[in-house]
Amino acid sequence: MSAARIATVTPVAEDEATGKVAEIYADIRRTKGIAFVPNMWRVLATNADHLELVWSRLKAVMHPEATGRAAILTPREREIIALAVSATNGCAYCVNSHTAALRKLGMDVSTLGEVMAVVGLFNSTNAIADGYRIEPDVLPPLD
Amino acid sequence: MSAARIATVTPVAEDEATGKVAEIYADIRRTKGIAFVPNMWRVLATNADHLELVWSRLKAVMHPEATGRAAILTPREREIIALAVSATNGCAYCVNSHTAALRKLGMDVSTLGEVMAVVGLFNSTNAIADGYRIEPDVLPPLD
Amino acid sequence: MSAARIATVTPVAEDEATGKVAEIYADIRRTKGIAFVPNMWRVLATNADHLELVWSRLKAVMHPEATGRAAILTPREREIIALAVSATNGCAYCVNSHTAALRKLGMDVSTLGEVMAVVGLFNSTNAIADGYRIEPDVLPPLD
Amino acid sequence: MSAARIATVTPVAEDEATGKVAEIYADIRRTKGIAFVPNMWRVLATNADHLELVWSRLKAVMHPEATGRAAILTPREREIIALAVSATNGCAYCVNSHTAALRKLGMDVSTLGEVMAVVGLFNSTNAIADGYRIEPDVLPPLD
Amino acid sequence: MSAARIATVTPVAEDEATGKVAEIYADIRRTKGIAFVPNMWRVLATNADHLELVWSRLKAVMHPEATGRAAILTPREREIIALAVSATNGCAYCVNSHTAALRKLGMDVSTLGEVMAVVGLFNSTNAIADGYRIEPDVLPPLD
Amino acid sequence: MSAARIATVTPVAEDEATGKVAEIYADIRRTKGIAFVPNMWRVLATNADHLELVWSRLKAVMHPEATGRAAILTPREREIIALAVSATNGCAYCVNSHTAALRKLGMDVSTLGEVMAVVGLFNSTNAIADGYRIEPDVLPPLD
Repeated sequence: MSAARIATVTPVAEDEATGKVAEIYADIRRTKGIAFVPNMWRVLATNADHLELVWSRLKAVMHPEATGRAAILTPREREIIALAVSATNGCAYCVNSHTAALRKLGMDVSTLGEVMAVVGLFNSTNAIADGYRIEPDVLPPLD
Repeated sequence: MSAARIATVTPVAEDEATGKVAEIYADIRRTKGIAFVPNMWRVLATNADHLELVWSRLKAVMHPEATGRAAILTPREREIIALAVSATNGCAYCVNSHTAALRKLGMDVSTLGEVMAVVGLFNSTNAIADGYRIEPDVLPPLD
Repeated sequence: MSAARIATVTPVAEDEATGKVAEIYADIRRTKGIAFVPNMWRVLATNADHLELVWSRLKAVMHPEATGRAAILTPREREIIALAVSATNGCAYCVNSHTAALRKLGMDVSTLGEVMAVVGLFNSTNAIADGYRIEPDVLPPLD
Repeated sequence: MSAARIATVTPVAEDEATGKVAEIYADIRRTKGIAFVPNMWRVLATNADHLELVWSRLKAVMHPEATGRAAILTPREREIIALAVSATNGCAYCVNSHTAALRKLGMDVSTLGEVMAVVGLFNSTNAIADGYRIEPDVLPPLD
Repeated sequence: MSAARIATVTPVAEDEATGKVAEIYADIRRTKGIAFVPNMWRVLATNADHLELVWSRLKAVMHPEATGRAAILTPREREIIALAVSATNGCAYCVNSHTAALRKLGMDVSTLGEVMAVVGLFNSTNAIADGYRIEPDVLPPLD
Repeated sequence: MSAARIATVTPVAEDEATGKVAEIYADIRRTKGIAFVPNMWRVLATNADHLELVWSRLKAVMHPEATGRAAILTPREREIIALAVSATNGCAYCVNSHTAALRKLGMDVSTLGEVMAVVGLFNSTNAIADGYRIEPDVLPPLD
């Protein structure tokens, strides 16, 4: 790929977006309070319906205040989950994005280290539990 | 495996534990405030050094108050990460255990649903970002 | 690694291949109708037996017409599976290769977006089903 | 867990569903043409907003005819992707569900064997490509 | 599924196998020195070509002495890799099978514990390295 | 990130390390017999407690001679497991590091090819076993 390629498809540039794509780009910038549209969304825009599906779901889950839903988890808890999942899957794009979001929320590198300590610990115990085929403990009813 | 088997190896029963294993079993019950030793630890006890390695690390990360370290993340944040990692890896033993821990910390099923909503969302976007080979956004320096 | 390195080992260049490796390189170019041997095969050639094992299997599965076997799945269906697996595993080399194969088969970016929509959706529901330990539905016998 | 438990939480039974949950249950039965609500949805119903988010997305992606969107991929292609992703992630609930869907669409066990052959092949090559850190081939522009 | 079901498809019983499937069943029993055909192969037999592809590859890689190839890795090393991969992927069928193979080769539970210690450790560091997007070290040329 | 960035956080340079971090850096160089501190440890050093946790565990598991524990697995077996896990997870940093370790232990590229052949084979069969929901074989008791 040439230097300008950022994915296996050519993303839709912000100044080329029209119709539904342009509206969603504007909503992304407004909802997230950022001045540019991240690569993810410009790549998804190669299929406008898919862009709409992913954005509407992410907006509902991660920006509930923008959709009128009462949030239970805090923004920090939500981004911590996002980073834990992304680290476990080894997704570089996503790790970059969610680390930045946590830093923006005020998390310092020492706390980030604790997040990684927990992520590392349980990726370890997950493999061990599966590697021995350990049966789940029988626990008292949860509800 | 017979009905009594809970793993690919025969776990060390609580009343058969001696020496280092017995000490760790006692520490597990005391530190976690539970009356029994979960399957995980009884299976790990088939290699006492491994039991010690995993328990000492888990104790340090998940029960910092018991090791004299000042905690930054809350117990709820740590268990949320544990569940997010376990769901992503599909580890049944671990999902069972960390869901129980969150319920014990007071999390209701509606909040658990939000945790799963975030876990589900980012397993989705991780696959999409990787499936298009999307390059990480160039972001301002974090620190 | 220096700029010329494309892997953790030094690949076998096309003009340095001899014997079994040279024969397989020729078969790869002929079977796939391409003018060069992709990096994957030149890396595998560092162990000629492994090259033969992987190529003979890939040829049988993906190019059944070249091995005299009647194909059931279409080439497009096979490449769609390849891309879905590669996106789920986050394998950059493989995503690149199978996206190119699908484009060569005529798939446009809008259809590629639908593939990614399905891939994303089920990576999401997989994590949720595992994250709640949902038991499989009891379904009527399949055959 | 007692015999009646099918997950880490107590699912919402069909005859106990009210309001938004009851409406979605009815939509699931109608859209999928089935007489019961699968375990997945009854578990998701423990958080009605999450149920709505996942169902509305799955309906849009997998039942486009029900949402007025023109489908590009065939139902068989969509279910093949679902099974490939679920096999790769090792999700038992999802493998069960999508195998049943493919059988309902008329796929016989021999064709299912071809799907698994392709899934198995690329899980293999993915690990090998990553295990050697093979750089993506530089390919001609795709569009 | 009824009690007799062991998979999403009905396996081919040993006394029902004919032609190519019967020949491969005999080769599996002979090559592995076992009195029965494991579930894996009886399920693969629902597509005889797939059975042949997987068995011929597994025989070449894991039983090189039976195919006249000089082995480099020892049987123990090969089974250790098989278990490490299966634990990492969380595949219950495979963990069961490769643990049994290692025990048959004489590995005791203490050594198995060391294998799991290494598997657990690197599943941990993998997630941490990916979770911080750590760049590979520049190392001296390998060959 | 600027050219000097090697991760999402700024690593602690060797000549800036003090106190516990400096001591661990020295121990890493001494135990591993290398002249520099790899990126992994310099990134972990952003949280000194985490650095200590991961290094003490890796030292115990991978350098037992340095901690006075009798080793059962050979160094080659331990590094083979590390590479198998890293290839399966697709962790580029880790693949790079463990391939180098195996080369340093004398493994040639042909043997490395055998390792990858086994890794590739079982990533394949893992997905197939899970993709058919194959039940584990009932095997004789292991101990």
